Amino acid sequence: MVRSEAPPEDGRLRVLIEAVLPEIDAGAHPVKRVVGDLFTVSADLIADGHDVLGGALLYRRPGDDDWRTTPLRELVNDRWEASILLDALGTWQYTVEGWVDHAATWRKHLKAKFDAGAFADLPVELVIGAELVAAAARRASGAEASQLHQLAVRLRDESVPIDTRVIMALADDAGQVLAAHPERDRAGRYPRTLAVTVDRPRARFSAWYEMFPRSCGAPGGHGSFRDAEERLGYVADLGFDVLYLPPIHPIGTSFRKGKNNTLTPLPDDVGSPWAVGSPEGGHTAIHPQLGTAADFRRFLRAAADRGLEVALDIAFQCSPDHPWVAEHPSWFKQRPDGTIQYAENPPKKYQDIYPLDFESPDWWQLWQALRDVFLHWIGQGVKIFRVDNPHTKALRFWGWCIGEIRRDHPDVILLAEAFTRPKLMYALAKLGFTQSYTYFTWRESAWDLRTYLEELTSAPVVEFFRPNFWPNTPDILPDHLIGAGHGAFALRLILAATLSSSYGIYGPAYELMDNLLRPGSGEYLDNEKYELKRWDLTRPDSLRPLIKRVNKIRRENPALHDNRLLRFHPCENPALLCYSKRTEDRTNVVLVAVNVDPRWKQGGFVDLDLAELGLSGGPFHVRDLIGNGRYLWHGARNYLELDPASVPAHVFVIEPT
Amino acid sequence: MVRSEAPPEDGRLRVLIEAVLPEIDAGAHPVKRVVGDLFTVSADLIADGHDVLGGALLYRRPGDDDWRTTPLRELVNDRWEASILLDALGTWQYTVEGWVDHAATWRKHLKAKFDAGAFADLPVELVIGAELVAAAARRASGAEASQLHQLAVRLRDESVPIDTRVIMALADDAGQVLAAHPERDRAGRYPRTLAVTVDRPRARFSAWYEMFPRSCGAPGGHGSFRDAEERLGYVADLGFDVLYLPPIHPIGTSFRKGKNNTLTPLPDDVGSPWAVGSPEGGHTAIHPQLGTAADFRRFLRAAADRGLEVALDIAFQCSPDHPWVAEHPSWFKQRPDGTIQYAENPPKKYQDIYPLDFESPDWWQLWQALRDVFLHWIGQGVKIFRVDNPHTKALRFWGWCIGEIRRDHPDVILLAEAFTRPKLMYALAKLGFTQSYTYFTWRESAWDLRTYLEELTSAPVVEFFRPNFWPNTPDILPDHLIGAGHGAFALRLILAATLSSSYGIYGPAYELMDNLLRPGSGEYLDNEKYELKRWDLTRPDSLRPLIKRVNKIRRENPALHDNRLLRFHPCENPALLCYSKRTEDRTNVVLVAVNVDPRWKQGGFVDLDLAELGLSGGPFHVRDLIGNGRYLWHGARNYLELDPASVPAHVFVIEPT
Repeated sequence: MVRSEAPPEDGRLRVLIEAVLPEIDAGAHPVKRVVGDLFTVSADLIADGHDVLGGALLYRRPGDDDWRTTPLRELVNDRWEASILLDALGTWQYTVEGWVDHAATWRKHLKAKFDAGAFADLPVELVIGAELVAAAARRASGAEASQLHQLAVRLRDESVPIDTRVIMALADDAGQVLAAHPERDRAGRYPRTLAVTVDRPRARFSAWYEMFPRSCGAPGGHGSFRDAEERLGYVADLGFDVLYLPPIHPIGTSFRKGKNNTLTPLPDDVGSPWAVGSPEGGHTAIHPQLGTAADFRRFLRAAADRGLEVALDIAFQCSPDHPWVAEHPSWFKQRPDGTIQYAENPPKKYQDIYPLDFESPDWWQLWQALRDVFLHWIGQGVKIFRVDNPHTKALRFWGWCIGEIRRDHPDVILLAEAFTRPKLMYALAKLGFTQSYTYFTWRESAWDLRTYLEELTSAPVVEFFRPNFWPNTPDILPDHLIGAGHGAFALRLILAATLSSSYGIYGPAYELMDNLLRPGSGEYLDNEKYELKRWDLTRPDSLRPLIKRVNKIRRENPALHDNRLLRFHPCENPALLCYSKRTEDRTNVVLVAVNVDPRWKQGGFVDLDLAELGLSGGPFHVRDLIGNGRYLWHGARNYLELDPASVPAHVFVIEPT
Repeated sequence: MVRSEAPPEDGRLRVLIEAVLPEIDAGAHPVKRVVGDLFTVSADLIADGHDVLGGALLYRRPGDDDWRTTPLRELVNDRWEASILLDALGTWQYTVEGWVDHAATWRKHLKAKFDAGAFADLPVELVIGAELVAAAARRASGAEASQLHQLAVRLRDESVPIDTRVIMALADDAGQVLAAHPERDRAGRYPRTLAVTVDRPRARFSAWYEMFPRSCGAPGGHGSFRDAEERLGYVADLGFDVLYLPPIHPIGTSFRKGKNNTLTPLPDDVGSPWAVGSPEGGHTAIHPQLGTAADFRRFLRAAADRGLEVALDIAFQCSPDHPWVAEHPSWFKQRPDGTIQYAENPPKKYQDIYPLDFESPDWWQLWQALRDVFLHWIGQGVKIFRVDNPHTKALRFWGWCIGEIRRDHPDVILLAEAFTRPKLMYALAKLGFTQSYTYFTWRESAWDLRTYLEELTSAPVVEFFRPNFWPNTPDILPDHLIGAGHGAFALRLILAATLSSSYGIYGPAYELMDNLLRPGSGEYLDNEKYELKRWDLTRPDSLRPLIKRVNKIRRENPALHDNRLLRFHPCENPALLCYSKRTEDRTNVVLVAVNVDPRWKQGGFVDLDLAELGLSGGPFHVRDLIGNGRYLWHGARNYLELDPASVPAHVFVIEPT
């Protein structure tokens, strides 16, 4: 006989656990959910032979040391699942166990023999069973222990007729109490512990409004937080819930950009807020013309009073005047000529910006300083951050930093502003960003939109990447909005607000349909990044009524609070895009039809997936929440016609008759 | 500042490695290949920013302590890959590394600045580059070190004109020697080490013939290995390469089954070879009527002389007369009445068989004894095993046992005879079985066959599960062969032999078209499992010529030696199945068209995927290797007609004109 080392685990473990879902990259990253979600975990339980198996979902709530368990139920083809209610913020852990249920196997065999009249086998079967029941009694306590103990005694009691004993063994309540106390000593365990990040609901459902507070002042003057307070009522009335401010820090003067991104600023040019830092301070300071720390806290409270939560922009880059440049020269890349390496994308130069050097020998000091920027603003009361260009900072830094923030502040939300390669965008989301910018801004055709949304709403992406759709930003005036009118702006707003449960606009540029491009730049003419802007909020052609209506529809229809149950319905006209969203229980079903052609009226038949909509094939009403029409439809095939000159979309709720 | 523990790894590692393929279940199981394969590994390399990256596939041949490396080449969308030649049997390991290539990034920027005429930047860029080149020189050795050292000196040499120095830096050979010595100190490593099992080619390409040696004797007598030697020429002439024997051990007499699986055997009934063990010995003994150990070894040699390799059947179960029953009672499940638990599927009983108890407290002793059964027969010269019902033995046992066998005998091939639930069949393959029985036996329609084969030939299944297609076995006479004639038997043989690179038949029942069912059993009438059979090998209607032809076609066409490049071509008639197989380089392309209806002639158009076949759209010849016809075809759409009354299939080779 060849000698070998015994394997490290008990060879009698007969159940393998495979293919636990949800899981991302072999458990390297958590999946994402929000408080109140029912979280369903499924797995394959695989064992030799034909014995009855049992299994449990093991989970730890935040702060738990020990596992809690809930039983798995069997589906088909060796697939099992269980669900738990996620009722606390933070990081939960989970894994799966499975075992051979000898008591259930014994009951199955006993029943087969009894039903087949194999009575000669029954006495020994009852003795075998009595041992299994007695063992379960030892694992139970209280009334259940007594019940199992008595059952074990009676199964052996030869004064009781044998068929009575068999019937006792096969009784449903005996099965239930046995199943509640399985023998788990030899349970197989999934080899990995997985995690789910539980956020507050706003992580998934949010409407953002981006605004420059410095443009809120009196004509010709630099606006302050006090001035911006006056604007809060307007933004709240539009129905937004997150008010996002570009960086509020002192702005550098070295190589400051002038109006329209020129290199020759005038003395009164205000500079780009993203050129962070001056002798007056860096990432934890406030631009003196915006106000004091107390003014800022007052602004946060005033916003909160109107149902608005303020989001700050965190842009980890420094103007040459930032205090860190002198205090921590090792955090920047030094060139052999003694200068600091400015940002560049050769041959382009951005000399007003010094990038931080994540390959610095002092990286650990740098990481902590950057983390502390977040903690500073959290201390001031900010819980939402839009992070500028996270894809140009080291990925491992983000994984660490977001973990540090969330450890004590699981209610913090971080939006990644990355427009870069797809896998890098996904990597940032996996590493912990709560929400992400997307390619929506450039997706125009119905086919492009459908393909992209199907990717975003399918596993694995839907498990970790929460899209936030922006029709415009201060950096981006997309081609389809250049010189465009009401139809195109309305179209892109409705798409963003109904395709994605989180969306945002840069205003008032959006509602006032700012559509002028500085030639050759891809940016707005007279871009607010480089100058103070005056916006006439009272203009009669403002999109304000439509935006207000759309945000109200979003709030009132829970179907629009998530993206997971987005489904597309085929249209014969490729200019029409039709999709539905619904709640799990289909008590709220929203059907959206959009004409993605901003110029011409388009019509055609749509083939509805009636089962998805919870319809049986008979007549039903669709009520338009934008246009207020109400239509009686019959069956799956229905005609639609949409004219961008009026409203380019229907947003229906389904009302079964 | 909040204090935190520094992260365990260097924060300056900027590259993440994700999605390495092939990989099964997060690296829990190896993928499978054969010696001579070019093995391609791909991965995502993801880093912040826009720097140039580099990467390497790391691999260890069997027995290596240190990693070898080969460079990754970039594909698109952050995907990289590399290939290595698998030139040795055994288990290879692999993983992936990636790093920021500062030297290549510098050269890219230098070129951009030079091309844009940004000459003022060049002096400092050359100094930066000289440092990078000098660092590469320190990592290099010999001539390359000198070359890099000289380049570093010259880049700094202000007596050389600056554009000359730039051109030197941008020269291709400078790029190549720099790339050969990257700075890998801060490389990111994929978190898992993966494995690939490298088998001999027969693991993937094999034709099996199952035969009962005891039926090879003189009329009325029990055949022996000496008798079976006489049959070897016949089997070799048919073109098979594996001769598989049912268990060759002593057969129990307790509860022995009589002819046709009856419980009332006659004294001269021979019993089922799968009731292993008698007082004459167990799993390492030979049935005395078959011969001695010396006879067996002589039989192996005689088979080898004819190009046949003998496969043994390993059936881990014991007749009540097996020596282990008395010697190791703890290896069996004891019942409270003192009896041993026989096999049962209540209410059915199999009292001639005792299953082994994998929950025995002596499991470790049992595992070693079972492993030693394999090692015994390997010691006798057997390298191929067909394992009976592996799905009723503990899965962890197989993972351990196959690892033990392969450690010293990487040329051993194990075929899993499991017809059970799909995930359990796949689990056995993942745990190490070289080949597997399949559901082919019951897949009849073109749609069923196509769907099943697409599953088997797609990732991840194709990476670990090697199908072996059996049209019949001693246990299974499928419905479509009951009472069937030449057409159906020919059809199933051609399907098995061309869809799967490994296939087998139970003969001579197959070539003699044994088609009689014992009513109600699913088994053959007068099944050879329970009695000696006489077969008339000279019958004029034998399928022998067709089988010989098909095996010759298989040998001569390397396209049929693998399943990975199987592709289906749509046919308008659902009774026709059309598929191709090809070599990687398309020097051998086989196109098969089958009429799966065994009764009626069927015709219709097939739409060929010309690109898959390596054709451009012009005319080409297809030469039928079975019927010897040669046809000139034009373009993708071609008409086919197949009559089961003659030959139900074309097996074409494509011959571009």
